[in-house]
Amino acid sequence: MDTVKFEDVKETGLEVLPPSTSDGEEITFHGSIYRIRKMSDFAFVLIRTAREIVQTVYDKPVADEHGLNIDDYAEGDIVIVKGVTKHEERSKRGYDIVLYGMEKLGGITGEAPLVINKKQVDTSLSQLLDVRSYSLRNQYERSIFLIQEAIAKAFREHLQAEGFVEIHTPKIVSGNAEGGAEVFDLKYFDKDAFLSQSPQFYKQAMVGVFERVYEVGPVFRAEKHDTSRHLNEYTGLDFEMGFIKSYKDIINIEMGFFRHINEVLERDYPDAIKELNLKLPNVDEFAVITFTEAKELLKEKCKYNVKADVHDFEPEEEKKLCEWFKKNKKIDYVFVTEYPSDKRPFYAKDDDTNPGYSLSFDCLFRGLEITTGGQRINDYKEQVDKMVARGMNPDDFEDFLLIHKTGMPPHGGLGIGLERLTAQLIGFDNVRRCCLYPRDINRLRP
Amino acid sequence: MDTVKFEDVKETGLEVLPPSTSDGEEITFHGSIYRIRKMSDFAFVLIRTAREIVQTVYDKPVADEHGLNIDDYAEGDIVIVKGVTKHEERSKRGYDIVLYGMEKLGGITGEAPLVINKKQVDTSLSQLLDVRSYSLRNQYERSIFLIQEAIAKAFREHLQAEGFVEIHTPKIVSGNAEGGAEVFDLKYFDKDAFLSQSPQFYKQAMVGVFERVYEVGPVFRAEKHDTSRHLNEYTGLDFEMGFIKSYKDIINIEMGFFRHINEVLERDYPDAIKELNLKLPNVDEFAVITFTEAKELLKEKCKYNVKADVHDFEPEEEKKLCEWFKKNKKIDYVFVTEYPSDKRPFYAKDDDTNPGYSLSFDCLFRGLEITTGGQRINDYKEQVDKMVARGMNPDDFEDFLLIHKTGMPPHGGLGIGLERLTAQLIGFDNVRRCCLYPRDINRLRP
Repeated sequence: MDTVKFEDVKETGLEVLPPSTSDGEEITFHGSIYRIRKMSDFAFVLIRTAREIVQTVYDKPVADEHGLNIDDYAEGDIVIVKGVTKHEERSKRGYDIVLYGMEKLGGITGEAPLVINKKQVDTSLSQLLDVRSYSLRNQYERSIFLIQEAIAKAFREHLQAEGFVEIHTPKIVSGNAEGGAEVFDLKYFDKDAFLSQSPQFYKQAMVGVFERVYEVGPVFRAEKHDTSRHLNEYTGLDFEMGFIKSYKDIINIEMGFFRHINEVLERDYPDAIKELNLKLPNVDEFAVITFTEAKELLKEKCKYNVKADVHDFEPEEEKKLCEWFKKNKKIDYVFVTEYPSDKRPFYAKDDDTNPGYSLSFDCLFRGLEITTGGQRINDYKEQVDKMVARGMNPDDFEDFLLIHKTGMPPHGGLGIGLERLTAQLIGFDNVRRCCLYPRDINRLRP
Repeated sequence: MDTVKFEDVKETGLEVLPPSTSDGEEITFHGSIYRIRKMSDFAFVLIRTAREIVQTVYDKPVADEHGLNIDDYAEGDIVIVKGVTKHEERSKRGYDIVLYGMEKLGGITGEAPLVINKKQVDTSLSQLLDVRSYSLRNQYERSIFLIQEAIAKAFREHLQAEGFVEIHTPKIVSGNAEGGAEVFDLKYFDKDAFLSQSPQFYKQAMVGVFERVYEVGPVFRAEKHDTSRHLNEYTGLDFEMGFIKSYKDIINIEMGFFRHINEVLERDYPDAIKELNLKLPNVDEFAVITFTEAKELLKEKCKYNVKADVHDFEPEEEKKLCEWFKKNKKIDYVFVTEYPSDKRPFYAKDDDTNPGYSLSFDCLFRGLEITTGGQRINDYKEQVDKMVARGMNPDDFEDFLLIHKTGMPPHGGLGIGLERLTAQLIGFDNVRRCCLYPRDINRLRP
């Protein structure tokens, strides 16, 4: 038995090599052998550490002296590395590490399923995902998820600074916020339940409590189409805010978030930016354009054959629109506002001054929709009437309508798919690259 | 169409009243009317804002001058409030706000389902949860979730500082990490799937990638017992770390987290601490005691009738143990280590020097287990052998075993239930109080 005073607790922190040190200094660190490059009379041994690939030098005479033989080790071995520093101008840290000892803690049993120690893993997406736990050990591949971490961090930091409270809402639900058949059913003991398609009802309710709330959590969509931009489970970045003057207040918060992504990346993730050759988007200027204007622009400026009376965009239209703004205005983030009401959900607020249109918006980024948002109905009667007009039964939404019945301020919010935003930021054409373990209609493993 | 320069974007931030201002200054803010307390010749009108209850004064002569009649308003009304400041020593801000105008944006339709404007809501837990979206508008009730936010924030801040990477792992899974029947089944298109009982497999895999990882996300347990300390869906705080020397490295990180909870609460949440009358736990000293020693202590010092050969604790034993440490050592957090192996999961690493025991631990806090953690098996053969010894088929765990097969460092981690930790910190005897929308065997709504 032991009581431990906190002052005696040693937390280790992440092991990081010092940026410079004097000649002949002993250095110990851990990692796994990423690559052994044998030259004529020496070898480079690359060690994959928690964040970077560290190059060490195997100099046979030095190693021999300490009984170290590189032939006793293989790529993939988990090792504690001992070396001495040797001044070297051209090295990133100002020194080379000359090996004199290695202790093996583990390694590969049998054959490795893939070659991971090239710049990128040279295989099909399907194979990359099949052995995901291994392929992510590639330096390029794992850097993707540092970019993703940066985005989630920027989201939280920005919203906290703007006075939003973090919430955790249930994923097993009895009601279905987004409608449609695209929902996973579930037996919840003796009841029928669903997996949550979005925290919509709950985040609106929490506006009545905290005024401004956000959530980072999983979202489930049983969509049957197998496309490069859909996942059946993704991480939603959601926020909702009260006492707005218009949906533009929501867009303003999102612009601030986009700007903060760049700031966080530049502040905390320079190595990942470099590894992925990231081109940070323009966050000094944004486009805000109504749906009607956007269709006009596609017709007039892009000479696109826009179909009459279509109340949404074709993927090709989203692409053309973004291309136009990029080319003519150097703008990356394009907000399209005031969509036709019939394509938006039943909780979207309509524009009194423009019948048939809603106070909603999407954000397009490099050719793809990454956000859907808008002002919501806050008045009880207005919400009930809209439900009835859509053939819905308000009695099925008793829990949701309680908030309208007990008073809600004008409010609205948005949802962003983390994986899709990551993919667009890096420039991948398949969102699966930006999900650790993607779920699609054919993939439930690993 | 519009392009918006970021420099012109006005983000509003959360509306907060200035701490002091000169006499006769005009003030506008928004909220909902929490309570109207009519006195003989004036009234106090309490406004519930995003974070606090602000008292204003309705002085009839002043109000009359501006055509404001308090009888036109009701508790629950959503309002924009206009007032002038009046110097007042005893007021928290140094001034009273004398009302001269109110604009109503919404209000209660029909009757309110509960009285929420007392110190605490005077009703049954069941009713409190039935109209959760409304009952959370009570100042005491909503403060609980600021404490919860503080805990999650402390977790992320601490782990980020210690070099952990945030991950998002799938909740729809094909394998079952924690075993047993306590799992929710799900039809995933044409496949059989489950809801994740913990990110165990995935976080272990990510140690092979990032060395240190954490996740904050939902965890699903189909436990049929309806107790005050279980939820069927809760928010898990999970981390996992590589290259540990022993499970004590994990405990050390957790001690740092507990300490940081206090720091974050004191730094950012003084009002919530006050509202809930929170007694912060001792984070200068912790207890670390083996399972065997703990049973001995219960027998010898607590005179508890410890049953022979029981390889776990009864709830009553956990309570007694915590009481003893609190009373005799002023210690709140008690780590019990080296549990009998047969009560721990198949991925737990056994103690070579003490057969039958595992290198695992629980953390008890104020009478309840809030953490389970430990070192995991990193060797491939050792993991396969343990599975076989338990009658499991290693072929069913191909995806999981890939990490052992391709090399893993010694590693371990832990999981914490956010709601339970919040409840223990505040001192509630039912964990449901600390979940926005709890799910239990009888409750799937709201």
